[in-house]
Amino acid sequence: MKPAVTYELIKTCKQSGARLGKVHTPHGTFETPIFMPVGTLATVKTMSPEELKELGAEIILSNTYHLWLRPGHDIVKEAGGLHKFMNWDRPILTDSGGFQVFSLSDLREIKEEGVHFRNHLSGEKLFLSPEGAMEIQNALGSDIMMAFDECPPYPAEYDYMKASVERTSRWAERCLKGHARPEDQALFGIVQGGEYEELRKQSARDLVSLDFPGYAVGGLSVGEPKDVMNRVLDFTTPHLPENKPRYLMGVGSPDSLIDGAIRGIDMFDCVLPTRIARNGTCMTSEGRLVVRNAKYARDFRPIDEKCDCHVCRTYSRAYIRHLVKANETFGFRLTSYHNLYFLVNLMKQVRQAIMEDRLLDFRNEFFEMYGFNKPNARNF
Amino acid sequence: MKPAVTYELIKTCKQSGARLGKVHTPHGTFETPIFMPVGTLATVKTMSPEELKELGAEIILSNTYHLWLRPGHDIVKEAGGLHKFMNWDRPILTDSGGFQVFSLSDLREIKEEGVHFRNHLSGEKLFLSPEGAMEIQNALGSDIMMAFDECPPYPAEYDYMKASVERTSRWAERCLKGHARPEDQALFGIVQGGEYEELRKQSARDLVSLDFPGYAVGGLSVGEPKDVMNRVLDFTTPHLPENKPRYLMGVGSPDSLIDGAIRGIDMFDCVLPTRIARNGTCMTSEGRLVVRNAKYARDFRPIDEKCDCHVCRTYSRAYIRHLVKANETFGFRLTSYHNLYFLVNLMKQVRQAIMEDRLLDFRNEFFEMYGFNKPNARNF
Ligand SMILES: [Zn+2]
Ligand SMILES: [Zn+2]
Repeated sequence: MKPAVTYELIKTCKQSGARLGKVHTPHGTFETPIFMPVGTLATVKTMSPEELKELGAEIILSNTYHLWLRPGHDIVKEAGGLHKFMNWDRPILTDSGGFQVFSLSDLREIKEEGVHFRNHLSGEKLFLSPEGAMEIQNALGSDIMMAFDECPPYPAEYDYMKASVERTSRWAERCLKGHARPEDQALFGIVQGGEYEELRKQSARDLVSLDFPGYAVGGLSVGEPKDVMNRVLDFTTPHLPENKPRYLMGVGSPDSLIDGAIRGIDMFDCVLPTRIARNGTCMTSEGRLVVRNAKYARDFRPIDEKCDCHVCRTYSRAYIRHLVKANETFGFRLTSYHNLYFLVNLMKQVRQAIMEDRLLDFRNEFFEMYGFNKPNARNF
Repeated sequence: MKPAVTYELIKTCKQSGARLGKVHTPHGTFETPIFMPVGTLATVKTMSPEELKELGAEIILSNTYHLWLRPGHDIVKEAGGLHKFMNWDRPILTDSGGFQVFSLSDLREIKEEGVHFRNHLSGEKLFLSPEGAMEIQNALGSDIMMAFDECPPYPAEYDYMKASVERTSRWAERCLKGHARPEDQALFGIVQGGEYEELRKQSARDLVSLDFPGYAVGGLSVGEPKDVMNRVLDFTTPHLPENKPRYLMGVGSPDSLIDGAIRGIDMFDCVLPTRIARNGTCMTSEGRLVVRNAKYARDFRPIDEKCDCHVCRTYSRAYIRHLVKANETFGFRLTSYHNLYFLVNLMKQVRQAIMEDRLLDFRNEFFEMYGFNKPNARNF
């Protein structure tokens, strides 16, 4: 059986080794490397589907754990699936709920059969297993589903991590068996192993032997320094097959997107652009800009003078600052729109640079202008 | 000098006496009777200018008092005026700040020169006068400005109201003198007088003698019963000139819009549709619908099956309920959009009924379907 999602390698950047590719899904094709906006509760915060399309989003991510609790995957299924429920006809990726179970809930107990924990909203006792995560994602009907994995905290001891990686591999096998709709939903495996090369290799080998249609690198962007993340990618991606897409979970700062692409990553997601937008913080080609600051009160320039998004073509820093200061929804719509556009457009530039075999040059130019090369550069 | 805003009477409904007309302004012409969405802080809450146009808004209202405090009228002026600041190229009406001074602030002291009061945000001592209200509105550059009036509470004693009406008339004269841009902004007078026929008549006579290009009826929708509002309109509008637009301030419930039009009102504004939207309450052709209620959890019908707005053509009650319950911005965008469309579209139907000399029939049909004819009908 042909998997529901396939990867087509277009070319490899001669300068950096980054991959330009296409991912084909039941809801259409997108080019990679790509950034995926996050729509936790079946909505990318403050945005409409029309706006997401206008700013160039080709695929979005939604959260299994959150939709399971609210409104309930049965309601989404009854609505005809997540695409129809939220009016998004392009590809959707859903995570497995694993990350939220480990990061949001207290009092969790990890057993071989799954995880017992408490609902972070109501305190109610819940249980999530590999089979449960598949059932929920099959009900949501996402194009790309993720295997249910354990997400150990950073840092974790080698012995704990080894046991965890082995359990995640056993769970991955159960996910494959529990997945009821492989003909129209693709299930990706998640490589874990923390910062241990040996364990990343073991995890990758285990999962690749199960022949998933795509692989994610999980357990990064959990508090480790950037060079640790890059080093882990350096020794992990070589163990992933060339003909499958690779997804780096939870990463969305501009430098990490570029550095991830250089290490062979194809897909990224992060709440960062919308989360900082709600605080009045914007990404610009010249670094971060906190538009709520007093110095923008009479600044009638756009957020980013080099950006050609609808917001930058239409509204001033002064207007957006006023809205954000007054806690007006429209202000957060504007900062969210611009930030999402910024990352979606950054990946477009990354793809262009791969096409031209100059992604390392692009990295240097971008880092220089953004300010990442400065000592003590402020990141997100 | 030709006033910046003129009124053209198209026809009078033979059945009801309601007026169909056109108001010409520096930023274009709109048909009346019309409902004006309120954009207090240079934004109609949760909405974009594009969406307002899409749902059919032809003119919006913005608040002088609020813009004076945040971001400051000087900043709006420096931005090139309110139209440019907020990216709205259709007509804008600004109120005078009078209503907010009387409703939002404590510790106010009314003197002949103006009102001393405290900023409702910071507690800072402020002063607003007829001349000040003109200066601010001239800086904002609205198409229609409102005279600075006193808004007495309901009910008020006859003697107090009489003194207030006389002061409002003296203030109106000072507003006319203080208005620096009559060639591109029209200043409307505001008829006060509470529920006293004698005082409404006196106020109308005073203001009409000053020859404003338009007149508002103020001091209604301040807590009085609906039949009092209708009675006041019955004995007030006959004293207003036929060749000027008439604006009923702060009124936006569907029944009052129709009843106001029947009494010769041309323009209405109210925060009601966006305010109730933020509570998950919708106006529908069959009455109010509180979409956050549990009974809509699996209801995949649109908010209003008879509505052809973008929201009703695209999203289900179940989805909108989910968003509203989860406090997601997009949910409030959807309920706001629908409610604004509902009132804008209601006025379109009112204009059509006037054209066909059947506004009383339309009133009966609408009231019957909406449920206003039922005993104990729930209004807003
Ligand atoms: Zn932009
Ligand atoms: Zn509708």
